[in-house]
Amino acid sequence: MTLETTLAALASCKIEPKGSLSHEPITTDPSAWKSALQAAPSSAASVPSEYKLTKTLVFKPKTAKSAAPTPLILIASEETDTKATNAISKQTGLKELRIASDDLIKEFFGVDKTSLSALSLNAELLPKVVVVVDDALATSDNVFAVRAASNEATVFMTGKDIYGYLSSLQTDASNDQAKVLHTFDFANAAEAAASSTPIAKAAAPTKKTEARIEDAHQLAIGVKKEVDFSTWYTNVLLKSDMIDYYSVSGCYILKPWSYTIWQEIQHWFDDKIKELGVENSYFPMFISGKVLEKEKDHIEGFAPEVAWVTRAGSSELEEPIAIRPTSETVMYPYYAKWIQSHRDFPLKLNQWNSVVRWEFKTPQPFLRTREFLWQEGHTAFLTKAEADAEVREILELYRQVYTDLLAVPVVPGIKSEKEKFAGGLYTTTVEGFIPTTGRGIQAATSHCLGQNFSKMFDISVEDPNAANKGDKLFAWQNSWGLSTRAIGVMVMVHGDNQGLVLPPRVASVQVVIVPCGINETTQESVYDACSEVAKTLKKAGVRVKADLRDTYLPGWKFNYWEQKGVPIRLEIGPKDIQKKQAVAVRRDNGVKTTLSVDDVATQIPALLETIQNEMYTRAKETFDQRLIQVTKWEDVVPTLDNKCVVVMPWCEVEACEDDIKERSKSTEQTDERAPSAGAKSLAIPFDQSKWEPIVPGKTKCPACGMDAKRWTMFGRSY
Amino acid sequence: MTLETTLAALASCKIEPKGSLSHEPITTDPSAWKSALQAAPSSAASVPSEYKLTKTLVFKPKTAKSAAPTPLILIASEETDTKATNAISKQTGLKELRIASDDLIKEFFGVDKTSLSALSLNAELLPKVVVVVDDALATSDNVFAVRAASNEATVFMTGKDIYGYLSSLQTDASNDQAKVLHTFDFANAAEAAASSTPIAKAAAPTKKTEARIEDAHQLAIGVKKEVDFSTWYTNVLLKSDMIDYYSVSGCYILKPWSYTIWQEIQHWFDDKIKELGVENSYFPMFISGKVLEKEKDHIEGFAPEVAWVTRAGSSELEEPIAIRPTSETVMYPYYAKWIQSHRDFPLKLNQWNSVVRWEFKTPQPFLRTREFLWQEGHTAFLTKAEADAEVREILELYRQVYTDLLAVPVVPGIKSEKEKFAGGLYTTTVEGFIPTTGRGIQAATSHCLGQNFSKMFDISVEDPNAANKGDKLFAWQNSWGLSTRAIGVMVMVHGDNQGLVLPPRVASVQVVIVPCGINETTQESVYDACSEVAKTLKKAGVRVKADLRDTYLPGWKFNYWEQKGVPIRLEIGPKDIQKKQAVAVRRDNGVKTTLSVDDVATQIPALLETIQNEMYTRAKETFDQRLIQVTKWEDVVPTLDNKCVVVMPWCEVEACEDDIKERSKSTEQTDERAPSAGAKSLAIPFDQSKWEPIVPGKTKCPACGMDAKRWTMFGRSY
Repeated sequence: MTLETTLAALASCKIEPKGSLSHEPITTDPSAWKSALQAAPSSAASVPSEYKLTKTLVFKPKTAKSAAPTPLILIASEETDTKATNAISKQTGLKELRIASDDLIKEFFGVDKTSLSALSLNAELLPKVVVVVDDALATSDNVFAVRAASNEATVFMTGKDIYGYLSSLQTDASNDQAKVLHTFDFANAAEAAASSTPIAKAAAPTKKTEARIEDAHQLAIGVKKEVDFSTWYTNVLLKSDMIDYYSVSGCYILKPWSYTIWQEIQHWFDDKIKELGVENSYFPMFISGKVLEKEKDHIEGFAPEVAWVTRAGSSELEEPIAIRPTSETVMYPYYAKWIQSHRDFPLKLNQWNSVVRWEFKTPQPFLRTREFLWQEGHTAFLTKAEADAEVREILELYRQVYTDLLAVPVVPGIKSEKEKFAGGLYTTTVEGFIPTTGRGIQAATSHCLGQNFSKMFDISVEDPNAANKGDKLFAWQNSWGLSTRAIGVMVMVHGDNQGLVLPPRVASVQVVIVPCGINETTQESVYDACSEVAKTLKKAGVRVKADLRDTYLPGWKFNYWEQKGVPIRLEIGPKDIQKKQAVAVRRDNGVKTTLSVDDVATQIPALLETIQNEMYTRAKETFDQRLIQVTKWEDVVPTLDNKCVVVMPWCEVEACEDDIKERSKSTEQTDERAPSAGAKSLAIPFDQSKWEPIVPGKTKCPACGMDAKRWTMFGRSY
Repeated sequence: MTLETTLAALASCKIEPKGSLSHEPITTDPSAWKSALQAAPSSAASVPSEYKLTKTLVFKPKTAKSAAPTPLILIASEETDTKATNAISKQTGLKELRIASDDLIKEFFGVDKTSLSALSLNAELLPKVVVVVDDALATSDNVFAVRAASNEATVFMTGKDIYGYLSSLQTDASNDQAKVLHTFDFANAAEAAASSTPIAKAAAPTKKTEARIEDAHQLAIGVKKEVDFSTWYTNVLLKSDMIDYYSVSGCYILKPWSYTIWQEIQHWFDDKIKELGVENSYFPMFISGKVLEKEKDHIEGFAPEVAWVTRAGSSELEEPIAIRPTSETVMYPYYAKWIQSHRDFPLKLNQWNSVVRWEFKTPQPFLRTREFLWQEGHTAFLTKAEADAEVREILELYRQVYTDLLAVPVVPGIKSEKEKFAGGLYTTTVEGFIPTTGRGIQAATSHCLGQNFSKMFDISVEDPNAANKGDKLFAWQNSWGLSTRAIGVMVMVHGDNQGLVLPPRVASVQVVIVPCGINETTQESVYDACSEVAKTLKKAGVRVKADLRDTYLPGWKFNYWEQKGVPIRLEIGPKDIQKKQAVAVRRDNGVKTTLSVDDVATQIPALLETIQNEMYTRAKETFDQRLIQVTKWEDVVPTLDNKCVVVMPWCEVEACEDDIKERSKSTEQTDERAPSAGAKSLAIPFDQSKWEPIVPGKTKCPACGMDAKRWTMFGRSY
C-alpha cells in the first residue's frame, strides 16, 4: 500500500495526520524505525517535534480445530508494558493468547508484520479480528508514529485519532462493536497485579497466585466516567457482572446481578398495580401483518423496526408474522370482543414480557437494545375522566420506581405533540437526566390513547344511559410501560470510577462482610464472627453476604465488591472482635463508621436507609442545579453545551420545536453514542410553580417570540 | 352438484351414508322435503325406516364495512329450537347475527339456499366460514336426512357422521379449527335462559334482563367431559376465562384467570430454587443459525419446529436468526466463557421466559402451543455426583408443584433411552395421567446432560488436583424445565361438567361470597354481612371475593363461579344473618356445610386445606387404580384400551420399545387430538418397591421374553 492510499483513507474519515514521511524499509525493531525517522531532513515539516512510537502485536487465541481463528491485534504505545495477556484474555473472552506466526499475519492481513499497524485495518478486516487498543494511546492527545500500512512510510497521528480511525471502521453490519474494538488499561492492570500478592505462605501454591492475579486484572473499569462515558458505561456493566455481550448484535445477556434489580422493580410495581385492580395476563409475541397494520399512525412509528418471521423449520409461512414491538394491536381486537357492555369496564390488563424493536442505530445495553424486557399495561374505561386519572396514578408509580427504588430524580410532565406516542391522545412522562453527558432521558411513559384505537378496533358499548338508548360509546384507553432501561439510567447516574453504585433498596447484596487482617491462628475466630454478624443481619431483613473465600486477599475483595456496587462493606478483623465492633464502609461516599456488633441489627438498616436517601438527594441536587431557567434565546445553546437542561416558557407550537432542534445543534461531539443532536422538548413539567408564573400575552417564547404557554424542558437527549 | 359427487366426497372421508335418494326439487319447507322423501318407493332400501330432518341456516354477522363478511352457517336438527342466536354470538365472538340474504348465500356457497347443507361445505370453503353444529345432532347416533348439496337429492347419515364429515374438512392450513367449527348445546342454552329470569320488579328494565339472559347462555360447558373430551377441555378453558383464541394459529391468550395460577407456581418454585442457590437471568430470544446448529443431535430434535426471523423492517437480514426453542445453545457458549476455573462452579442459572416451537400438529391450549411460557434451569458442576444430586432435587420440586400445588398425582421416574432429551445423558420425569382419555402425560423433566454439551462448547477448567496439573475437566451439566402445560394437566384432571375445579392453593379466588334470598328491605344488611365476612377472611389470609353485583341472580352467580372453579362458595342470606351463620358449598364435591360466622377465620382455611388434600387423594386413587401391573403380553392392549397405564417388567431394549409401540396400536379412535397411537414407555419409576422384586435372569419382559430389568410404565400419551 502506498502512503497516498493511506492518507486518502484517513482523509475520508476526516482525520488529519500531524505529518507523514516515506523512508527506507524498516524491521520491527523500534530503534531501526527511530533511526529511519531521524534520518529524515530535520527541516521536514512533516515530522512533528515530539512523538512516540507505536507497536502492533498479533495474537492467536485458542480455538477449536475446525473453527477459523480470530486474531487479536493489539495496538499500543511502544512504551507500554503489554505483558498482561491473561487480563486481555479475560476482557475479550479469547483464551490462551499466543503470538501469531508470521505466516498467519501474512495470510490474514495480506502484509508482512513489519508493515502491520492500525492503518492496516479497514472496514472489511475489522469485523474479522478483535482489536485491543492501549488506553494510554486511545485517550491521548500526544502524537504517535504509525506505520502507514507499509514498512516504507510513517504517519503521525494523535492517539485519539488512531482510536478514532479504528472506530470509524465499524459498521452496523459488523458484530457488536465493543466486541471487536476494546480499550485496555495496562497501567491499571499492572497495578492491580502488584497489589494483589497472595497471603504470605512459605510454600504457597503458585497456581492459586496466578488465578488471583488473573482475576485481579479484571477489576479495573479501565476508563474514566468523565473522559469516555460510553466505554465507562459498558465496562461498568461488564465488570460488575450485570451484562454480557451476545452473539446477536443489539442483544445482551442480563446476568443475575442486573436481573435481580429488575425482579425488585417487578415485585414492587406488580403489587402496586394489583392494588389498583390491574390483572396480569400474557398475550402471544406474534402478530399477523394484517392486524399490525390496522392502525396507520401507530404502525408508521414502528414499522421500520419490526422483526418478521417468514419461515418455520423448512416451510415458508403463507403470511409473514411480526414479533410485537408493543402490544396495542395484539390486544385490542380482543378488548373489542371482551367489552360488550358498560359493566365490562374498566378492563385493566398488564403483561411482563419482552418486545423486539430491530433498531439499526448503535445499540447500548439497557438503553437501546433489539429485545428488551418491560411491562406494558393496557386499560379501557367508559369515561375520559377515569382514563385521565389512571394515566397520572401510573405515572406516579413510575416516579416512585425511580425516586424511591433507584434513587434517581425524575421530573413528571407531559410530552409535546411532536414527542407523544404515535396514535395516542397525549403522553405523560417521567424525565431523567444523565449529568455526565448533560442529556435528558425518557424514563417511563404513561399514555392516554383517547378513543383512537377504540374507534379503530371497535371497542364500544351501548350507552348505559336510558335516555341515549342505542348510542354507541367508544372506550377511553391508556397504555403505559416501564422497561429495563431504568437499570441503565440508574447505572449512569450513580456509577463512579470504581464501578457500580447500587441504591440499597434494589441491591441484591446490601452488605458484604469481609474478614480482615487475619492469619492462620485468627482465621477461624474471625470467620465465625463474620458468619455470626451475617446471621444477625439476615434476621433483621438485610440482604447480606459474608465473603469468606480464602483464595482472595481483603484488598482484592474490596475492589471486587466496590465494582459490583454493594452499598455497605463491613470489615471485621481480630482487633474488632476484641472490641466487639465492625467497620462499615459506604460505597456511595467511602465514609467509614465503627459500629458496635451488638447494634448492627438496628444500625445497618438505618445506614442503608441513609445511603438510599443521600444518594437520591445528591442526584436530585445535581439535576436541580443543571435544570437551568432560560428566557433568552442566546442562552439556550450555551446552557445545553454546558451539559444542562433548559427550562423555558414555550409557545408549544410544533414548528417552533423543529426550529429549536435545528438551531440548537452543537458542533461538539462528546459522546459517539448520543450524538450532539439538537435539543428537543423533554417534558412540560406538571409542577410549574417552581418558575415565575407565565403571564398570558406577555411572557414570550424565547425561541420564536410568540406567546408562551408553559415552562417546558428542552435538552439533548438519549 | 350430483348425488354421485357428494357420495364420492363422503367415501373419500370414509363415511358410509345410511342411504341416499334422488327426488323432485324441493323448497326450504320441511314438509315439502318430507313429502318428497315419502314419495320414494317404500321398498327402497336407500331410505332408512327412521330419520330426522336437518336444517341449515346462514347468518351474516356485523362486520366493518371494508371487511369481507364471514358467514356463520348453522347446521341443526329440524326439531331444535335455534333461536338462541345471542348465545351463539357470545360463543363465536360474531356480533349481531342476522339471517343472510339469498344473494349472499348464492354468492358465497355457489348454490341456492334450497340446496344448502353441511354437504355444501368443502375444505376450501370451510376456513372462510364459521360453522355451528347443533349438539343434539353432532353427538347423535340417530340418522338424519341431509340435502346432498342439491335440492334434488338427499343423503341419510348419523349425526356423528355429519359432524365427522365437517371435522374431516379441517386442514392444518385453516385457522384454529375450534374457531371455525363449533358445537352448540341449544337445549342447555334454553334451560339456562329459563332459569335466569330476573328478580321480579314490576317495571324491570328490559335491557338488564336481556344482558342477563345473554350472559347466562355463556355458562354451559356445552359438551360432556366423558363424551367429547377435547371440546369439553377447550370449552372449560374458554368459559372459565382462562384463555382466548388468538389470530395467529397455535397461539393462545393467557387471561388473568390462568396467568395467576402460573404466577403462583412461579413464586413457589422461584423461592425454592433460590434456596438451592440458583439465580435468575435473562438471555436473548434470538440465536444465530450457526450457534444453533452446533450441537447436531440436539438441533435435530428441534430443527423442524424452529421459527426464523429473516427480515427487519424492510431489510432482509444477512443471516436468518432463530427464535429459541430452548436455550442450551443460547447459553452454553457463555458458560464456556464464564467458567474459567474450578472455583467458578457450580454455575446455576434459571430463566422465566417464553420459547417458540412451531409445531404443525393440531394445537391444544397449554399442551401444544407454538409459543409457551416456562422456566428453564441450566446448571454446570465440576462432578457428576453433584449434577446427579441436583437433577433429583429439581425433580422433587416438580413433583411438589404437581402434588402439593396443583393436587395432581405424578410418578417420578427416569425416561428410556428412546424418550430422553436429545443430546442429554439421561432424563428424569414426573409423569401424569389423564383419566378421561387414559393417557399418560409428561408433566416436567429434569435432564442430566452429562458432558456432551460441555465438550461441544468447551466448558472446561484445569483439574484443581495438583497431581493432574494441566488436565482438562469438562463440566457436568443439567437442564430442567416446567411449563404452563402444568395448568392444562390440572384442568384435565380436576375439571368436571360444570367447568373448572381449582385446587385452593393456586386459585386466585379461593372463596366467593354470594348474597342469597334478598329483597329490597334485606339487601343492605345482607350485603354488609357479606362484606364483613370477606374482610374477616382476607385478614385470615384467604383470597376472597364478595360478589355483590345486583344485576345477577344468585343462581346465575352460582353457575358463574362454579364454571370458574372457585373452591368454596359461601352463601349468606337474611336467615343466616339471624343465626350468625353461612353456608359453605364445596366446588369439588358439592358438599354443603353450615358454619358459624364467628368461626370462618379458622374453619374456612381448614376447609380449603381439606379440599386441597381430598382433591389430591381422589386423583391419586384414580391414578393408582388405573396403573395396572401386567406380566403377560396379551393383557397389555386390553389394559390400554381400558384407559389404563401398564406397568410391566421391561428389558429396556430400544428395539423392544419400538415393537411394543407398533403392536399396541388400537383401532379405537377416542380423541381426535390424541390419536390412539401405540403405547410408549412413560417412565421407569424410581420407586420400584410397589411391585414384586424383579429376579435377574428369571423375570422376563412380557413383550420380548428377554430378561426384564425394571418395572416400567407404558401408555398411550400426549
